[in-house]
Amino acid sequence: MPHAPSDLLSRRHASIRTAMAGAELDALVVFALPNITWLTNFVGSAAIVVVSPDRVLFITDSRYVTAVSDMAGTAHECPGLDLVVVDGSYDPTLASVVAGRGFGRLGFEAAHLTVSRFQWLEQTLAAAASAPELVPVGTLVESARSVKDAYEIALFRTAGAMLSEVTLAVLAGVPRAGMTEREVAFAIDALIRHTGFEKPAFETIVASGPNAALPHARPSNRKLGEGDLVVLDFGGVYDSYCVDLTRTVVVGSASARARDVHDTVRKAHDQAVESVAPGVSRFAIDAAARDVLAAAGMGAAFGHGTGHGLGIDIHEEPRIAKRGPNVDTSREAVTPGMVFTIEPGAYFPGWGGVRIEDDVLVTESGVEMLTQAPTELITV
Amino acid sequence: MPHAPSDLLSRRHASIRTAMAGAELDALVVFALPNITWLTNFVGSAAIVVVSPDRVLFITDSRYVTAVSDMAGTAHECPGLDLVVVDGSYDPTLASVVAGRGFGRLGFEAAHLTVSRFQWLEQTLAAAASAPELVPVGTLVESARSVKDAYEIALFRTAGAMLSEVTLAVLAGVPRAGMTEREVAFAIDALIRHTGFEKPAFETIVASGPNAALPHARPSNRKLGEGDLVVLDFGGVYDSYCVDLTRTVVVGSASARARDVHDTVRKAHDQAVESVAPGVSRFAIDAAARDVLAAAGMGAAFGHGTGHGLGIDIHEEPRIAKRGPNVDTSREAVTPGMVFTIEPGAYFPGWGGVRIEDDVLVTESGVEMLTQAPTELITV
Repeated sequence: MPHAPSDLLSRRHASIRTAMAGAELDALVVFALPNITWLTNFVGSAAIVVVSPDRVLFITDSRYVTAVSDMAGTAHECPGLDLVVVDGSYDPTLASVVAGRGFGRLGFEAAHLTVSRFQWLEQTLAAAASAPELVPVGTLVESARSVKDAYEIALFRTAGAMLSEVTLAVLAGVPRAGMTEREVAFAIDALIRHTGFEKPAFETIVASGPNAALPHARPSNRKLGEGDLVVLDFGGVYDSYCVDLTRTVVVGSASARARDVHDTVRKAHDQAVESVAPGVSRFAIDAAARDVLAAAGMGAAFGHGTGHGLGIDIHEEPRIAKRGPNVDTSREAVTPGMVFTIEPGAYFPGWGGVRIEDDVLVTESGVEMLTQAPTELITV
Repeated sequence: MPHAPSDLLSRRHASIRTAMAGAELDALVVFALPNITWLTNFVGSAAIVVVSPDRVLFITDSRYVTAVSDMAGTAHECPGLDLVVVDGSYDPTLASVVAGRGFGRLGFEAAHLTVSRFQWLEQTLAAAASAPELVPVGTLVESARSVKDAYEIALFRTAGAMLSEVTLAVLAGVPRAGMTEREVAFAIDALIRHTGFEKPAFETIVASGPNAALPHARPSNRKLGEGDLVVLDFGGVYDSYCVDLTRTVVVGSASARARDVHDTVRKAHDQAVESVAPGVSRFAIDAAARDVLAAAGMGAAFGHGTGHGLGIDIHEEPRIAKRGPNVDTSREAVTPGMVFTIEPGAYFPGWGGVRIEDDVLVTESGVEMLTQAPTELITV
């Protein structure tokens, strides 16, 4: 469970209420659990929160009543919280909570409510005496979450150091010729847990030989063989926050091409990291990596974005991506407190691939590496 | 990856098309990945399927093109599949796929599309020349999935036997006094993987002493101590299908109360299992367990439902639950081919709790246990 201190939770609430006022909302219904965790420190599997101008109505079921009430009076209690225990199921409880409060415009997270639940809520509220108007709202809380506060930054420094420690252990001896990808992944997951993470942040990727050409390969029973490049992409969850790192190693001796591709991706990684500073466009950070690969004739081999924000979700704002026709261009500049990955790669179907990934924090003066481990091509 | 043979996939498609015809739909957009897996054998992390009266339009991105095209010509290929590779992002591709086909009424899974995506689709399609009408559809595919076919039943028998094997190993020696809940959970997860499951089906529950009073406790650093009841709830995913089992053990000697609670829950489990037969109401199966607990004065200690369907999801139809005011009463009778858990429990805050869970298959003549392991109170 995260233990953000109450005064920081108050600041988070204030930032959301400012955004609510800007959208002329009397209250906001928050459905996304990561948003609820960020607003309240709660980590259960089910809850709905209604943020009003002065209260945080917290709806949960009997399983989590103790978890919520235990926070009261502690240094990390959620300010202004009113606990509502679900009677029957969630949405009827939500409807009865919001119906009688005189809310005019009631915002809701449109990206986290399904059409079927929305239809039910709309019909049910229409039958109420003073029905609020349901107003779809975009990623209001997610955008606020993209700038980390002091509590979160301290936590990221710890988690980043822990993941660096895992990485050093992995590079020092986990993947070996003859092991299957699954065996390597299993050993990495064990290191992640033993280092103190709650769990892996996603299904660990171990992609060897031709499988390394697939950015999202799942570990298979393929055995690591001489000359294989092996992409190792893993992460951990620490106090609800995700960190994420990739290294690519070679089994036995590397071919000239393997060295060349690795060297180019490494330069792309370094250039992108060096480009990070407050006020810089996230598209420019992407271009810093992409330009290195393009200059080496590997532009087409880099099909994904350069990075993604990290936080309670493994993929958050900001998206460090290529500017394009279907790309959201809002909030272009990165700002101090943002945490994201830098992970360029080059993938050649049938042959293999390379990816190198670290986590960075935007500071007032530039950039801080949250993860640190050798980026040279290591032989295993 | 599941390998349902093509003729069974055809039957699944036919059942969906019959339901579509009943709702006067020209096509159905399927967003839920488990539904897509069931219709096509596909197991990637992203796809949208449009079922028309004669084709299965399969929209996915470049990561999964090989996985889909590799199925062509095999015994488990998806009949009538037309592959559409995403150009840019998914929803614009979906819009362009459905816009020009002359669909009148286009059903979509309202429980699996968010309001924000729906609004975008509706606006985009409204601008098209021959815009289909978007019609919200309930859990049409989920209901069809609740009755398993021959391929799935064979798979459940294998997975159930594997989970029974894990259970025997767990009961024979995993939990020991002095170990933490997390250490026990980690050892159980290792057994699950080594037995051949792809992964645990959910976060393994090891809840000891007072923690056992929380049905959804997460493993903590609490050490197992003398006299503790320990709830062990774990499952595995085998070829995309989930199985799930719970046993409660005692550390050292059990108190009279612990023996009494365990004995009562065991009787409730047995009564519920014995009540299962084709045509029996799922509410009656729940009552069979609940009545035993109530007769022993433990009715209030059993706060959750008696069971849930199993399949590609860990929680599916049918819900073996208490009939109540906010409970969906459709599809009340269980039928041959349904697979679900029987898992009564009794929980006493501050003291502890007991749960015993097995997986059953409804047969033509009654019930078949898919998992088998001792239900006596075992001392560790």
